[in-house]
Amino acid sequence: MATIFLYEIAGTAMLTLLGGGVVANVILGKTKGNGGGWLLINFGWGLAVFAGVWTAYKTGAHINPAVTVGLIANGAAEFAPGIPVTFGNTIAYFLAQLIGAFLGAVVAWLAYKNHYDQETDAGTILGTFSTGPEIRSYGWNVVTEIIGTFVLVFIIIMFGNTPHQLGPLAVALLVVGIGASLGGPTGYAINPARDLGPRLAHAILPIPHKGSSDWGYSWVPIVGPLIGAILAGLAAAAF
Amino acid sequence: MATIFLYEIAGTAMLTLLGGGVVANVILGKTKGNGGGWLLINFGWGLAVFAGVWTAYKTGAHINPAVTVGLIANGAAEFAPGIPVTFGNTIAYFLAQLIGAFLGAVVAWLAYKNHYDQETDAGTILGTFSTGPEIRSYGWNVVTEIIGTFVLVFIIIMFGNTPHQLGPLAVALLVVGIGASLGGPTGYAINPARDLGPRLAHAILPIPHKGSSDWGYSWVPIVGPLIGAILAGLAAAAF
Amino acid sequence: MATIFLYEIAGTAMLTLLGGGVVANVILGKTKGNGGGWLLINFGWGLAVFAGVWTAYKTGAHINPAVTVGLIANGAAEFAPGIPVTFGNTIAYFLAQLIGAFLGAVVAWLAYKNHYDQETDAGTILGTFSTGPEIRSYGWNVVTEIIGTFVLVFIIIMFGNTPHQLGPLAVALLVVGIGASLGGPTGYAINPARDLGPRLAHAILPIPHKGSSDWGYSWVPIVGPLIGAILAGLAAAAF
Amino acid sequence: MATIFLYEIAGTAMLTLLGGGVVANVILGKTKGNGGGWLLINFGWGLAVFAGVWTAYKTGAHINPAVTVGLIANGAAEFAPGIPVTFGNTIAYFLAQLIGAFLGAVVAWLAYKNHYDQETDAGTILGTFSTGPEIRSYGWNVVTEIIGTFVLVFIIIMFGNTPHQLGPLAVALLVVGIGASLGGPTGYAINPARDLGPRLAHAILPIPHKGSSDWGYSWVPIVGPLIGAILAGLAAAAF
Repeated sequence: MATIFLYEIAGTAMLTLLGGGVVANVILGKTKGNGGGWLLINFGWGLAVFAGVWTAYKTGAHINPAVTVGLIANGAAEFAPGIPVTFGNTIAYFLAQLIGAFLGAVVAWLAYKNHYDQETDAGTILGTFSTGPEIRSYGWNVVTEIIGTFVLVFIIIMFGNTPHQLGPLAVALLVVGIGASLGGPTGYAINPARDLGPRLAHAILPIPHKGSSDWGYSWVPIVGPLIGAILAGLAAAAF
Repeated sequence: MATIFLYEIAGTAMLTLLGGGVVANVILGKTKGNGGGWLLINFGWGLAVFAGVWTAYKTGAHINPAVTVGLIANGAAEFAPGIPVTFGNTIAYFLAQLIGAFLGAVVAWLAYKNHYDQETDAGTILGTFSTGPEIRSYGWNVVTEIIGTFVLVFIIIMFGNTPHQLGPLAVALLVVGIGASLGGPTGYAINPARDLGPRLAHAILPIPHKGSSDWGYSWVPIVGPLIGAILAGLAAAAF
Repeated sequence: MATIFLYEIAGTAMLTLLGGGVVANVILGKTKGNGGGWLLINFGWGLAVFAGVWTAYKTGAHINPAVTVGLIANGAAEFAPGIPVTFGNTIAYFLAQLIGAFLGAVVAWLAYKNHYDQETDAGTILGTFSTGPEIRSYGWNVVTEIIGTFVLVFIIIMFGNTPHQLGPLAVALLVVGIGASLGGPTGYAINPARDLGPRLAHAILPIPHKGSSDWGYSWVPIVGPLIGAILAGLAAAAF
Repeated sequence: MATIFLYEIAGTAMLTLLGGGVVANVILGKTKGNGGGWLLINFGWGLAVFAGVWTAYKTGAHINPAVTVGLIANGAAEFAPGIPVTFGNTIAYFLAQLIGAFLGAVVAWLAYKNHYDQETDAGTILGTFSTGPEIRSYGWNVVTEIIGTFVLVFIIIMFGNTPHQLGPLAVALLVVGIGASLGGPTGYAINPARDLGPRLAHAILPIPHKGSSDWGYSWVPIVGPLIGAILAGLAAAAF
């Protein structure tokens, strides 16, 4: 269980450090990447997954409760070699992922500290931590997150069926693709920890001009991804 | 035959879900990727192929009637290990690809439902489903589609001749390249199902402000790719 | 020798078809990629190399006289398995590359025929075929081409020393990088055939509003790459 | 020791040639990549690492004192197969990296000579050689460099734990990701030689309109990366 905590915390922290970082780079003021566009954000998040997966190699590199849940729904016996699917281990993965996601967001904030201190738009600040919809409509926002997470978890389970030596690049590019294609409406949380951990960090950190942490939306990037993951795990069992 | 339907439907649906999604993200209003540019669209479609190919691993991942036809023209004995080239199997591939492409477009519409509901430009709406030329000239539009599909099918057949462990990344990057280089005039259908399936979805789905499905152009992205595929299959036999 | 002609013609044609295509897409009017930017051009050319290298697998995929010359300078005994370094074979490579580059440019012109017919700027038209400097200064333009080609040929020779399974992706990404980093002043010909073949096509094809083929500059992208290739072949022998 | 000098000089020169080149392409006037954006810079630097790593294959391709220091902190016995960790070898790596970084910057200047000669903004000129912060605040600038270098060195050490055949592409993409995500505030030196070598070149080269080499900031991209590397080497020992 210490293994789960060490690797999933570190891997998920790497994920939200680099993921939060690229959004900060694109939308905070006076950065070198300011206004760099959606493809830059997509590559930043994809390569954040890349770094996170190298880090969490010993625990199967879930770094996402949706992956953990998807494997259970798929009927997996082990989360990773030597780590059986049990209730206790599941909770350990969830907790570690949430803690890691929180810590990564804190470090991203430190990396961009000067820029946060000069930012005066509350929506921009929150946008570097958590996802939010362009058109608020909880039902359809959940649908979008279900679809995006379904693609993520379904294809991850498929990776084992085709020979390749891409290592963590496969999932990194998958995430670039999901962001490019399905991130437009809600910002592709597709990972409950990736959204909730940084939202907690936003609520706690002493950032000038930060506004609400938008808790009213916070359930969407939890519920949508979990539903999508369960559907993907079940569907993948037929392939 | 059930294998063909299951895998080709799922793979082609993955293709048009992510492919239609990236166009919706770039051209529909109020999305996070709005105005994201051609390279974003190219990577979105390339990685849509990436996801589709992982999915349809058991049927050789055609997810495109042009690939099926190209293999026949090339003289292949099997569409995939264990699936012989027969008339019945050919029809099954075609039907499954068309059904999958239709379903993927429906799911992409659901993912962007809020944005479709607010979009008032009919050309933009159709552009997220099917291809259309920038300069309408059926003859030359067919030529462009022949050339693009020739490159696709010819290089896919070449993949087996050089050692590599790129797996589905090879074809994904090939499609990024074809889009970047040959997509400018017609939007690179290079796949009859990818165009016809979503066009049918466009015709059927209840989308406000949608206009004509432009059936007058619909034969171009069918005939061009099929000619290109036959030429590629024949040419590749000399290499 | 028939092998050299078949594979090097086809591979180099694939190169200039996709390479010329991406420039046409970005700079000709009314294309979907119009104004798509330098990174789009870099990926287009890099993936043009990708396609060309898959095609010319049997001849070592030179598709560039600079590579052929670099291997000679490096002291290679064979251009590819079974193809010895001889004067006759060298000339065959050169001729095939030039013919292929010419043919690819013609096909790219066909793919963008409608757009060429409506283009009225002579410089733009020539820019889709051949390279030209942003600041004309033959001496320094040669220096830039020497440096770019040195990097290309030197790293290609290094590929064999590190284990990997990237196949043609390695050289494709190398060309993306050279374009991004060293293409700014002259447009990175780094390949005499890539420049001369399309320039001949430009001179011959019946394109409205085309102007001069700028033969005054045409020696730069031949001499620079050949010098760079020789230096790279010699330098690589020390590693 | 001659091996260390030859390979680390050449590899680091390749790094700063292509890295300095892409910045020159994007920010100097009249280049083809002018205004090409942050993602272009990120890919340029990532592929500069790609080229550098192929080059320096025999010395473990450090091409960065932070990597050398990180391996020591991690408790490595060898810098590369056959090159033991000793004080003398460490100094040789450092010196070679600095010399290489200097030389690469000189060659990049030659490649863009025409454009440097016409550039009149001193800040732009320096920006093509060395890094500088968008918001000057030495303490936080150091923090940003510590975090970026930590990610670089930590993940490089992790590469060995997951099977893959990406070769030098793994570290190239890692650097694309670090630039996208953590390069916003300071321009991601994450390598003391990459900053100091070109800064020396800037100080020495006869460039019209060049201004100060900003030596006041020069310690930040040395101290930050070295601290980050030591922390990464120590942290990685627990994984």
